[in-house]
Amino acid sequence: MPTVNAYAATSATEPLVKTTVERRELGPNDVLIEIKYAGICHSDIHTVRGDWGPQSYPLAPGHEIVGIVTEIGAEVTKHAVGERAGVGCLVNSCRECEQCRKGNEQYCAKGATGTYGSVDADGTITQGGYTTHIVVDENFVLRVPEGIPFEAAAPLLCAGITTYSPLRHWGAGPGKKVAVVGLGGLGHMGVKLAHAMGAEVTVLSQSLKKQEDGLRLGADAYYATSDPATFEALAGSFDLIINTVSAAVDINAFLQLLTVDGTLVNVGAPAEPLPVAAFSLLMARRSFAGSAIGGIAETQEMLDFCAEHGIGSDVEVIAAEQINEAYERVLASDVRYRFVIDTATMN
Amino acid sequence: MPTVNAYAATSATEPLVKTTVERRELGPNDVLIEIKYAGICHSDIHTVRGDWGPQSYPLAPGHEIVGIVTEIGAEVTKHAVGERAGVGCLVNSCRECEQCRKGNEQYCAKGATGTYGSVDADGTITQGGYTTHIVVDENFVLRVPEGIPFEAAAPLLCAGITTYSPLRHWGAGPGKKVAVVGLGGLGHMGVKLAHAMGAEVTVLSQSLKKQEDGLRLGADAYYATSDPATFEALAGSFDLIINTVSAAVDINAFLQLLTVDGTLVNVGAPAEPLPVAAFSLLMARRSFAGSAIGGIAETQEMLDFCAEHGIGSDVEVIAAEQINEAYERVLASDVRYRFVIDTATMN
Repeated sequence: MPTVNAYAATSATEPLVKTTVERRELGPNDVLIEIKYAGICHSDIHTVRGDWGPQSYPLAPGHEIVGIVTEIGAEVTKHAVGERAGVGCLVNSCRECEQCRKGNEQYCAKGATGTYGSVDADGTITQGGYTTHIVVDENFVLRVPEGIPFEAAAPLLCAGITTYSPLRHWGAGPGKKVAVVGLGGLGHMGVKLAHAMGAEVTVLSQSLKKQEDGLRLGADAYYATSDPATFEALAGSFDLIINTVSAAVDINAFLQLLTVDGTLVNVGAPAEPLPVAAFSLLMARRSFAGSAIGGIAETQEMLDFCAEHGIGSDVEVIAAEQINEAYERVLASDVRYRFVIDTATMN
Repeated sequence: MPTVNAYAATSATEPLVKTTVERRELGPNDVLIEIKYAGICHSDIHTVRGDWGPQSYPLAPGHEIVGIVTEIGAEVTKHAVGERAGVGCLVNSCRECEQCRKGNEQYCAKGATGTYGSVDADGTITQGGYTTHIVVDENFVLRVPEGIPFEAAAPLLCAGITTYSPLRHWGAGPGKKVAVVGLGGLGHMGVKLAHAMGAEVTVLSQSLKKQEDGLRLGADAYYATSDPATFEALAGSFDLIINTVSAAVDINAFLQLLTVDGTLVNVGAPAEPLPVAAFSLLMARRSFAGSAIGGIAETQEMLDFCAEHGIGSDVEVIAAEQINEAYERVLASDVRYRFVIDTATMN
């Protein structure tokens, strides 16, 4: 088995260290990708620190992966050596259940295989993108269009699809009023994508600190949620609210901002349940929903959409040795808007 | 102003008593209805007891009203003397806002006028159906088809439309699996209606006590929610769950019973917020929604649907002097499935 350089957590409580992980030999349907950039997602931190359950260590996280195809298995037809490739949050699924057949691999009845920390088909634990190379079944490899700079493309594989999918599913577009709660990694993609879809976009952020950024990214309006007047001014306004905040928020206050038949979609999952007043919902037939990433075909559609509309993530490129420092800054919401690791610094 | 016999609450804490209320003189667009039967809805009890805010007394509740048109205003065109008529939860709305124009008067931007305890256009407080006569604008009067016995029709005006509207809105029909939580006044109508729409219907009730009834009403399956095995057996099963229970339930347990893209709709409003785990929603793109009664056109559609399918409410007809006793039995869930007052007993 090929051994490749990596940055990995060795326990839930220690910083990530430079190490190596094993990649499987290339199977007939596999693609070998030389990774160029890997984004740092908040989920990476939650996972390696055991917030979402115990892990097997060492664990290299990372599910916002872009690179170049350097080798393909004998039966690969969808990808070619030299292509720009991407890998997101999933590297396998059952491919047989109703949801897999519909292209919703993320909702696979048997549970899709996550890009890191999941049990793979061969029984090993998957290792993510904080590495120099990855081997992935061709059906879970995306094509990254030429139009998107590599480092700006990496976060699309999670932050991009996580906001794109609910925007599409709930019909964001011309004539629709969309609010994005939180202007972080996910939120800034939500603003860019909703704007490109033709919706009228409002940012609802804790403060007005990032207002200038928000408007530059494509927002039509920007409000501070720390100001109670915001909730009076915007009552009953939005067809769709995408809540990207993983911390607990006053969900009923946000539900009141929806118009009749409006939907508030959580794409983050706070650790504590959110108390929902049924009256907030039933007095205007509102919905409180959740959405997780997107399927493979939809992820490709999103990448193509981004290329067409000149959309990438706003990133800060870092060297691998800065990962632990970057983690602290992510936790402090001090990043505009995504850290991306230049994996050449792992060599 | 005509004075009519009524049963009304004189305070939040005392039993209803026989009294009289005033009706307005017939305006050009008004219809005078001689009430035959009035259903007892749980909301009546909440309202007169001040659970939903302070009221003006005396207050005659009742918003499940059927009777005969005995007089019409000079400009009335939609109804004629001698017709069977119904009045539900609404007697007016702004008629100008987007929702009113769409036929969603129940979500009127200015707040629709409730059949009792609301401020009417003339500044008086509306009085409901526990009376012998009511005067209502013709646009808020329904036609009750001949095919439905009068006493079985009354509860359709609230319990019927409250379940019909979300079943239609969320697409209950052939190939859809629908669960109805709670087999009370609303639940028994939900079962009949979902079955008539062609859906596969499951009742989720506290115990199996009413199982025989549930199957007779049209359910294909019946499970006890007090049995934890129910939640294992039915995980991921339903496209739509209509929750008719107003008490707090473990909403996450019920959300887990939804399939991908499924919706749980609350038609009751527990006093306390329901803690919703975002993971319950986002791992399968589920929605938690609410729905309140239905618009006037949809209420007429529901009545016509019921006539076509031979559907009425299962009722216990009572005399007016039994109202207070009936209230206690409603609170104890001891009614199959709706009390209906024979208003002739008020004369």
